[in-house]
Amino acid sequence: MATERPSRLRVFSLNCWGIRFFSQLCAERYEMIGELLGREQHDIVLLQEVWSERDFLFLKRKLSSCHPHTHYFKSGVIGSGLAVFSRHRIQDALLYQYSLNGYPYMLRHGDWFGGKAVGLVIVDVSGLKAHVYVTHLHAEYCRAQDQYLSHRTVQSWELLQFVRHTSCGADLVVLGGDLNMHPQDLGNRLLRSHTGLRDCYTETDTFDGCEDGHTLIADNHFTKNHDLVPFEKGIRIDYILMKGSQRMTVKCESLSTTKGPVADKPFPYSDHEALTAELTLLHSEDSRQHGSSGPLAVSEQMDVVTEARAVVKEGLCQTEALRDRAMRLVLGALLLLLLLLVMTFLPCSCFCSYSTLGLLGAVCMSLLLSGALLYLLFTTHIKVLKETEDQMMLTSNELQTKLTGCRLSGSSSFDGSPEL
Amino acid sequence: MATERPSRLRVFSLNCWGIRFFSQLCAERYEMIGELLGREQHDIVLLQEVWSERDFLFLKRKLSSCHPHTHYFKSGVIGSGLAVFSRHRIQDALLYQYSLNGYPYMLRHGDWFGGKAVGLVIVDVSGLKAHVYVTHLHAEYCRAQDQYLSHRTVQSWELLQFVRHTSCGADLVVLGGDLNMHPQDLGNRLLRSHTGLRDCYTETDTFDGCEDGHTLIADNHFTKNHDLVPFEKGIRIDYILMKGSQRMTVKCESLSTTKGPVADKPFPYSDHEALTAELTLLHSEDSRQHGSSGPLAVSEQMDVVTEARAVVKEGLCQTEALRDRAMRLVLGALLLLLLLLVMTFLPCSCFCSYSTLGLLGAVCMSLLLSGALLYLLFTTHIKVLKETEDQMMLTSNELQTKLTGCRLSGSSSFDGSPEL
Repeated sequence: MATERPSRLRVFSLNCWGIRFFSQLCAERYEMIGELLGREQHDIVLLQEVWSERDFLFLKRKLSSCHPHTHYFKSGVIGSGLAVFSRHRIQDALLYQYSLNGYPYMLRHGDWFGGKAVGLVIVDVSGLKAHVYVTHLHAEYCRAQDQYLSHRTVQSWELLQFVRHTSCGADLVVLGGDLNMHPQDLGNRLLRSHTGLRDCYTETDTFDGCEDGHTLIADNHFTKNHDLVPFEKGIRIDYILMKGSQRMTVKCESLSTTKGPVADKPFPYSDHEALTAELTLLHSEDSRQHGSSGPLAVSEQMDVVTEARAVVKEGLCQTEALRDRAMRLVLGALLLLLLLLVMTFLPCSCFCSYSTLGLLGAVCMSLLLSGALLYLLFTTHIKVLKETEDQMMLTSNELQTKLTGCRLSGSSSFDGSPEL
Repeated sequence: MATERPSRLRVFSLNCWGIRFFSQLCAERYEMIGELLGREQHDIVLLQEVWSERDFLFLKRKLSSCHPHTHYFKSGVIGSGLAVFSRHRIQDALLYQYSLNGYPYMLRHGDWFGGKAVGLVIVDVSGLKAHVYVTHLHAEYCRAQDQYLSHRTVQSWELLQFVRHTSCGADLVVLGGDLNMHPQDLGNRLLRSHTGLRDCYTETDTFDGCEDGHTLIADNHFTKNHDLVPFEKGIRIDYILMKGSQRMTVKCESLSTTKGPVADKPFPYSDHEALTAELTLLHSEDSRQHGSSGPLAVSEQMDVVTEARAVVKEGLCQTEALRDRAMRLVLGALLLLLLLLVMTFLPCSCFCSYSTLGLLGAVCMSLLLSGALLYLLFTTHIKVLKETEDQMMLTSNELQTKLTGCRLSGSSSFDGSPEL
């Protein structure tokens, strides 16, 4: 068996910044990306922000000989933007669309219209079952006052739950994508501590790329400087994470990033830098190395869930306040409508023509409709936040039980991770 | 180990018909349901249509001593309606909201407002890991011309994908709920053939209940006769399904249903009949009995996926037609707005006051807004239908590969089920 299985797996991840008619030099950059992928022939390519299906089909045609297996995940109004190209056979695909993803009225941010999600493809890598996840989380537009923090935290929670519960039969797990979170941000810690996924950047033997592994850098032609403030040198928000299994050990041999400008080309591939990880796969001898964690790890899991619960609770309060405002808008519009009705039937209403009353009525109806739609929107958000908090509480209780059991027994090698 | 693990598991499922201010005698029926559950002390209780959290909390209080572990799944505008009560510890919970669930403008059907979903709880049954699913699919309002058939087929597909991919580490799998499908309906065949779940009604040793296992019967006080046409005797749309694992064999010892009227009570528990299954759990000796299926089973899987793909394609055509209509509404409203603008600035517009023009403008804006919202809605539906079709195609190809491999090798005992 060992002879027919590959010892290496090369994984590539890039946020392509492919918003047609908005992203600069989109067609030219896809041409460059296609060339790069055709030349490098990675085993698995994970792309984000491929918003147009036409661009996906362009790449699919271009890579048909080296990457014959593809899946383009479709969700939301304009799609999830997620695409996978693989040299190995894709056996199955599954999509989980995040329950919270911004607000439809925030048109200039626009995340809501992309059905942000996590996609899973099960890839047969010469007999090994690789569960490969690709994802893209809600963007962070203002770090100081991040109105989407609770949304991103819920997305991180849903991502980790999805990975934990769908990766059980995998020989190895790879997750790549634009998490829109710094390495030590809450959602990132939550994801790593509860799935056992390890960051290729911190685990790699050799690294060749931007300083501190940054994937948004000032040196990129397309980067707007104000996007980086106060991190002038750059930030790391794109990742390749990995995990082995009881049967396989996975190790990151090398990790590299693009570094902004591309040799012999007038501009970079995207406004993000691309990641390439070279993973080594070894048949595992210690069947418990991926399934166990000590009390310290459980304690860390507890702490990070507690922190996340606080963020979700705060988000809940804010969303309840928004729902109350929407309710006041509905009530105000109803009151105005009532007033108009009274004016219509009062004899003193002659100063106001029926047409004017009709116009005012139409305005009131618009307000009423907007208020009602917003009320529905915030009500669904509240449901999601409450559900997430309940799930976090369950996990918290479960960890507490394990921690107590561990302390009582004095054991230091129990299986502390719920699903690792 | 065998001595400390239970040999039996009693599972209860009921659609509670708990729509406050609409469902008849709601409070009285919840009182009766609480009494029944407190008396019978099932291991696991799966409820649907518990639309009000207040009713869930009422049951939670009433059952706090016998069923101390609960989870109420929250999604959509008014909730998923799904609740679990358990005598055994719930370790974890996960929710998957179906991507298609009717239309918000179909107010008299109302399914869209309930965030129909499948909920998973992982229950520790004295050391055994039971993955327990509860779900409720979109209702069928007209069997002859079922406008929701593609939605229910997509829901069935998402349900089976969710079960397949999240049940890998389970010792046993139980799924209960209101599937809103007859036993041989496409979605039901899809679910059973691709998950390996077995129907307790067809598998039970002893059955005590309504004729043919019906769960919507004419003899129920709350049933409207026209709901049953042309199945005057009743229909079977509520189910308890089960599956063992390589470690455990599960068998349905007995299945019973309520039979409409309740002794010493003036009315039934609900407009649906409740199901109670008594399952026997045995440590498995044949580790392949739940992981293998012959070419015939694969062939059946192929056939049913092909059938489902045709339904999804048909749904796609219908939804594209609806999106085109929404687009025409938007264009019509824009044209009218343009006409109004022209009238406003033309000298001959004196026959029409500014107020009238304003009123007409407001009407046009409302049409424009409605058209745009409908366009967004149908666009997301198209994305979901296409994603489902792609996933079905992947599965179909995978099955074809296995079938070909099997025929070539002449083997009759290969693992034909993708994830069983």
